[in-house]
Amino acid sequence: MAHDPLPVSEVPVVPPRILLGPGPSDANPRVLQAMSGPMIGYLDPDFVKVMEEVSELLSRVFNTEESLTMVLSGTGSAGMEAGLSSLLEPGDTVILCVCGFFGRRMADMAERVGANVVLLQSEWGRPFPPEMLEAELKKHDMVKMVATVHAETSTGVLQPLEEISRLTKEHGALLMVDAVTSLGGTEVRVDDIGIDYCYSATQKCLAAPPGLSPVAMSPRAIEVVASRNTKPSSWYLDLALIANYWGGDHVYHHTAPVSNIVGLREGLRVILEEGMGPRIARHNRNSAALRAGLEALGLQLVVSPEHRLDQITPVWIPEGIDDQAVRASLLRDHHIEIGRGLGDFAGKVWRIGLMGDSSKSEYVLALLSALESILPSAGYEVAVGSGVGAASKSLAEL
Amino acid sequence: MAHDPLPVSEVPVVPPRILLGPGPSDANPRVLQAMSGPMIGYLDPDFVKVMEEVSELLSRVFNTEESLTMVLSGTGSAGMEAGLSSLLEPGDTVILCVCGFFGRRMADMAERVGANVVLLQSEWGRPFPPEMLEAELKKHDMVKMVATVHAETSTGVLQPLEEISRLTKEHGALLMVDAVTSLGGTEVRVDDIGIDYCYSATQKCLAAPPGLSPVAMSPRAIEVVASRNTKPSSWYLDLALIANYWGGDHVYHHTAPVSNIVGLREGLRVILEEGMGPRIARHNRNSAALRAGLEALGLQLVVSPEHRLDQITPVWIPEGIDDQAVRASLLRDHHIEIGRGLGDFAGKVWRIGLMGDSSKSEYVLALLSALESILPSAGYEVAVGSGVGAASKSLAEL
Repeated sequence: MAHDPLPVSEVPVVPPRILLGPGPSDANPRVLQAMSGPMIGYLDPDFVKVMEEVSELLSRVFNTEESLTMVLSGTGSAGMEAGLSSLLEPGDTVILCVCGFFGRRMADMAERVGANVVLLQSEWGRPFPPEMLEAELKKHDMVKMVATVHAETSTGVLQPLEEISRLTKEHGALLMVDAVTSLGGTEVRVDDIGIDYCYSATQKCLAAPPGLSPVAMSPRAIEVVASRNTKPSSWYLDLALIANYWGGDHVYHHTAPVSNIVGLREGLRVILEEGMGPRIARHNRNSAALRAGLEALGLQLVVSPEHRLDQITPVWIPEGIDDQAVRASLLRDHHIEIGRGLGDFAGKVWRIGLMGDSSKSEYVLALLSALESILPSAGYEVAVGSGVGAASKSLAEL
Repeated sequence: MAHDPLPVSEVPVVPPRILLGPGPSDANPRVLQAMSGPMIGYLDPDFVKVMEEVSELLSRVFNTEESLTMVLSGTGSAGMEAGLSSLLEPGDTVILCVCGFFGRRMADMAERVGANVVLLQSEWGRPFPPEMLEAELKKHDMVKMVATVHAETSTGVLQPLEEISRLTKEHGALLMVDAVTSLGGTEVRVDDIGIDYCYSATQKCLAAPPGLSPVAMSPRAIEVVASRNTKPSSWYLDLALIANYWGGDHVYHHTAPVSNIVGLREGLRVILEEGMGPRIARHNRNSAALRAGLEALGLQLVVSPEHRLDQITPVWIPEGIDDQAVRASLLRDHHIEIGRGLGDFAGKVWRIGLMGDSSKSEYVLALLSALESILPSAGYEVAVGSGVGAASKSLAEL
């Protein structure tokens, strides 16, 4: 039988890239190798062992002994929606403490659940001030949940959690924390902070491709989900059903993405072999070098030193420079992806990610060198060599 | 710095298996290789090209020129829920025409949406009779959607769609079809049948690991989603938002699982290179051999010849045989996974899958040989060699 010609070409499909955007970042080669192994049944005893190992490894990365740690079959946004739709019921009040792009997304999801959504928005580029939460809590008799973002990728700010947690507990509410960008690059202390529902994603600091959302649920969150009056709006993201598959009885819910889970297991091993201390130090060292280089080029950083994330560094786009043209040239001529600004920062900032396996000194130098080559032709004068020089000095010092 | 010993061992994590359950089936080696390539940004022009190719390849496999074909970042169940939650609004009537396990799941999802759910259940092991739908439609002024399952993995029945579609159109309702098990092993004719929303999964007949749900949406379904009065209950599974990412403008929704999508592209190329005609013939030849072998062993098939699926063959467990012990021995001693019965068939049938890359004559022979070795010690006499002999004869004839 003659076949029609296929409409698509052979490999290579995906050209090499230096990924310095908001994710995906590089997957570790060991993760990719693990993912390319044979399939296995989602209830096979040998796969159940993999799940149990992943759960145990996650409990170390989340710093929790109390919480149930498991993996949702969707991206970080699935983790966000699973928490909002499984922990909130129609009419429940949720307070969102946000100062970035992803607060609007949380609000959208919570509104779809039928919750009473209070969206507290503070200034972008700074942490959310706990006083705003304190004042809001006083207006309510009963708040079901307070939610915030630990590492805000749209602004590059690290959110301190202690005070928000204290106020939330005082009011008897559940605490949900977005750790999509923090987990694996910053300590996420689920038990110490008292986080009831914490979700992340695999493609930022966990060295694996996108597609899974690791989560940690406190005993209290499990109880809340188990004692709902109504079913959650989503079956696929129903945390009670997912916990039945990951928990003791391994009750069939849906066909688990076995390859991705086997890959994540390897990513977590990579992380724990490096050790969280050295891993955080590496993120810090490389982002310090990046910042030194950017400042040597005369670029202005968005976030003040005490609130900076190492995972993502937003920088103001100099006046008169064509945002899109610079990013296109970086990608086309230098194979480097950096992130564009979102929301309030659209067209105003570039966001440079150094996350997980993409947090590498050679990537920092490659980006600075590329900027030194591109910016002058875009009309912004730089002293060529000053950026890479400053970065190199910073690397030598740390 | 000293690290704690890691709680999990080295590879091999996943031992070799012959996967003859309801999925996952084998992933094609070319798919696994494609998935192990480097990461790429989800808005990178080279990744957008991959998406456009996947969409084009899917339109061939779904046999549609009219529908928007795209991929959801979740398993087949996510595809199911996306359709129900994006096409139905609270109060809408949906009629589910089912005779298997997955009808109950659809009903659960549709109830969570707040729809008026009519669950028509007919006898397991036979197709759903269109007369039941016809009678039900007469009771309603307005039905928003009719849903059915093309290839029911819980019963091994192929559902004819023509008459159900005719009745549905006559009534002005949308037609949703579950093609999780059919797509890639049976012709799915989206345009000819007039399916408004068709969803599948990657781990059965599409030669890829689980984790994605390919879907096809008709122009009418797109219009219905675009003109809703309320937002769908789920943001993550909101087909309008997902269509904005896969469609012309490629508006950011969530971080796409880029590796899985690159892998699916390769799986679809594998399928179209084999050609749907030869591929269906292969599925037919191998399942005919399996059936011949099982019958030679004196086992009774559940489905009558005219309604049988080639992808999955349910067989009655002989009286007095320990279901679990036989499946455990197959897995432990022969590395073969077969499926257990679900719902009405729990403990009563085994389900033997021959799907996609797992539809291989050597797997048929390996299973029959293993059964010839196990069944006598479980108390069921067989003429050793009769099963493999009959299968071999069937393979030679076809």
